[in-house]
Amino acid sequence: MIGFEHMKKISRMSPSKIVLLVIDGVGGLPHPKTGKTELESAKKTNLNHIAKESLCGLIDLISPGITPGSAPGHLAIFGYDPVEYNIGRGIIEALGIDLELQPEDVAARGNFCTVDSKGIITDRRAGRISTEKNAELCQLLNKIDVNGAEISVVPVKEHRFVLIIRGEGLSPELADSDPQQVGLAPKKIEALLPQAQRTAGIANEFVSQAKGLLRSARNDIPSANMVLMRGFSQRPDIPSISEIYKLKPAAIAVYPMYRGLASLVGMEVLPTGNSITDQLESLRQHYGDYDFFFVHFKSTDSRGEDGDFEAKVQAIEELDNALPSLLSLNPDVLIITGDHSTPATLARHSWHPVPFILRSRWCRPDNVTEFSERACLAGGMGRFPAIEIMPLAMANALKLDKFGA
Amino acid sequence: MIGFEHMKKISRMSPSKIVLLVIDGVGGLPHPKTGKTELESAKKTNLNHIAKESLCGLIDLISPGITPGSAPGHLAIFGYDPVEYNIGRGIIEALGIDLELQPEDVAARGNFCTVDSKGIITDRRAGRISTEKNAELCQLLNKIDVNGAEISVVPVKEHRFVLIIRGEGLSPELADSDPQQVGLAPKKIEALLPQAQRTAGIANEFVSQAKGLLRSARNDIPSANMVLMRGFSQRPDIPSISEIYKLKPAAIAVYPMYRGLASLVGMEVLPTGNSITDQLESLRQHYGDYDFFFVHFKSTDSRGEDGDFEAKVQAIEELDNALPSLLSLNPDVLIITGDHSTPATLARHSWHPVPFILRSRWCRPDNVTEFSERACLAGGMGRFPAIEIMPLAMANALKLDKFGA
Repeated sequence: MIGFEHMKKISRMSPSKIVLLVIDGVGGLPHPKTGKTELESAKKTNLNHIAKESLCGLIDLISPGITPGSAPGHLAIFGYDPVEYNIGRGIIEALGIDLELQPEDVAARGNFCTVDSKGIITDRRAGRISTEKNAELCQLLNKIDVNGAEISVVPVKEHRFVLIIRGEGLSPELADSDPQQVGLAPKKIEALLPQAQRTAGIANEFVSQAKGLLRSARNDIPSANMVLMRGFSQRPDIPSISEIYKLKPAAIAVYPMYRGLASLVGMEVLPTGNSITDQLESLRQHYGDYDFFFVHFKSTDSRGEDGDFEAKVQAIEELDNALPSLLSLNPDVLIITGDHSTPATLARHSWHPVPFILRSRWCRPDNVTEFSERACLAGGMGRFPAIEIMPLAMANALKLDKFGA
Repeated sequence: MIGFEHMKKISRMSPSKIVLLVIDGVGGLPHPKTGKTELESAKKTNLNHIAKESLCGLIDLISPGITPGSAPGHLAIFGYDPVEYNIGRGIIEALGIDLELQPEDVAARGNFCTVDSKGIITDRRAGRISTEKNAELCQLLNKIDVNGAEISVVPVKEHRFVLIIRGEGLSPELADSDPQQVGLAPKKIEALLPQAQRTAGIANEFVSQAKGLLRSARNDIPSANMVLMRGFSQRPDIPSISEIYKLKPAAIAVYPMYRGLASLVGMEVLPTGNSITDQLESLRQHYGDYDFFFVHFKSTDSRGEDGDFEAKVQAIEELDNALPSLLSLNPDVLIITGDHSTPATLARHSWHPVPFILRSRWCRPDNVTEFSERACLAGGMGRFPAIEIMPLAMANALKLDKFGA
């Protein structure tokens, strides 16, 4: 990798267009009965057709054996070293609901949860309360007054909210209170560095007051009687896609976290409906206004996390069926890959590398004729780090000058 | 990579011989009609025969997507990180015409060019004047006298010259005056760091006097009425091949830049005629005197840059026909690869990886039977960074001790 400073020097603007389609969690594992992965099981005429004309490979998002969270997975695809730019969950949640953050704000992800009379967690999601109930509870928690900082509690979806602590001299170096499993009590929030002691005090005071309010008569949802906090973080100093690559980038994503991630790296977040057809219609409408598009397809990951092999296969087929409208735009560079694997057999994110295809007038096609894990392994890129995708995209769009004389 | 300090400790001298044949720009892209690359289209019995007995692969000179200039491409093959050792164009041009440089000398590449009455560039190459006319013009410019530094102007080929600024306290941190396109005026040379202010003043004074002389009655070539300067640089501090690998290296190259690069890394530059047959005859003559030979074949790149697919195929066949005289020497290690791709369809350097073959008594051959992009992908090295070539060469020549106890 040549580094962003060099990339800034050799990148140039041009009319060519790059479309990056991320199929969340698309990589899988063989079904025990058929020996075929979700991708190998799906009917996917369009994906296979594109693979035939593409440079293919398998990407490692972080490195072999390391399972990526959604944020590092996407950051790697966007060209950022996911270890160097390790962005906190709190910040991503905040960005995903369009919160304006100041550089020193500390953000955390919160869950409403259920604890029993001994304070032991019995449901980490408070019975998945409705988003409306969540909003009422957040209004209640916004009454919290803590010495030395301003507190805002903003609802996300269902049981999730964002806590923003605003003030001077704050530090995000705090451990989670969320033990990530039932049967344990929420943990006291610990400072990971001495300079975070004061912020830890503020965060614990918030939790303590929240507990009181949620158990008071002012809360009429008994399942939501406690909060779990995680991912304390500050907005990172991250160079934007346009600064590095001279691109004018846009994102078409339904879920908040992915919109937040896209906005963090300087993409314009476009309005879209919820289906992939809606998303591709949004792409078509805005196609003239940008030269880089990130399109995020979510349901492959959701069905994988549900452990529903067949439903994940159907999600792939749904995507494949929607592709002709994208193909009719004939982008100069089309990249299709995923941010991690979510094998239905594991029912969670996994470390397995993810199929990658890149089609352009200037790619050197290989012998791969199928978009799948096994087939792409024989591709022209072999197995490679995801952070090399952006340079490849730029090269194939003829947006890079040569390096050195 | 183990780094030069470790390499110095484990390398050892031995009588075995390494021949590195660089086929400039050899990698290509499929012809739209046949679907075959230049290499796949060429009759190349000898190259295929060597591939059959070789360890094969595809190299990335810098990293995927990055198009190498000739200098970083060769440096990577010679084992130097091409981003760390990013050598200026001025230095390379100077070395290529056998100029003896002192450590503090600042060198720049110059073009004679044509500007119109408003000072706007209309031809960046002054109508590609002859090398003889160039020499006359350089003689004229050598009359330039600048306060605080010694100026030399040395002709290269056609419209190109080298400017050497010699003096104390000079800095090469200067921006180009060459805007790299017609329709613009040459830029004032700016200092990129405060300590380069004085050198910027000297360089601008040179340009100003050059402009005056070229417009005077003393210049009888009206198309050459201005100069464009780029690549201000100083000789880098680069450890030599013999220091790192205990090799006695020699170079057989026709074109100045490649001789210059070879000399920069401490190779002895051998006399040679212009054809590949001449070059291999020079190899034969000096075979007993060195243990590492870099042989550079240029015309594949030139024909690729011309966009002449058929001529590039012929250049590959010309090289293949010349190989028996090399093979009769039976070097202990024979490596054949390229410094970048130059697909005739693109008519310029490109980012595509380059076929690589290594034959030795001790290589582990794979199933590859052809020297081509697609075939070598399935080789024992797969796709790998070019800076790993030198350790492989040394290992196969049995010139490396093991690392660690």
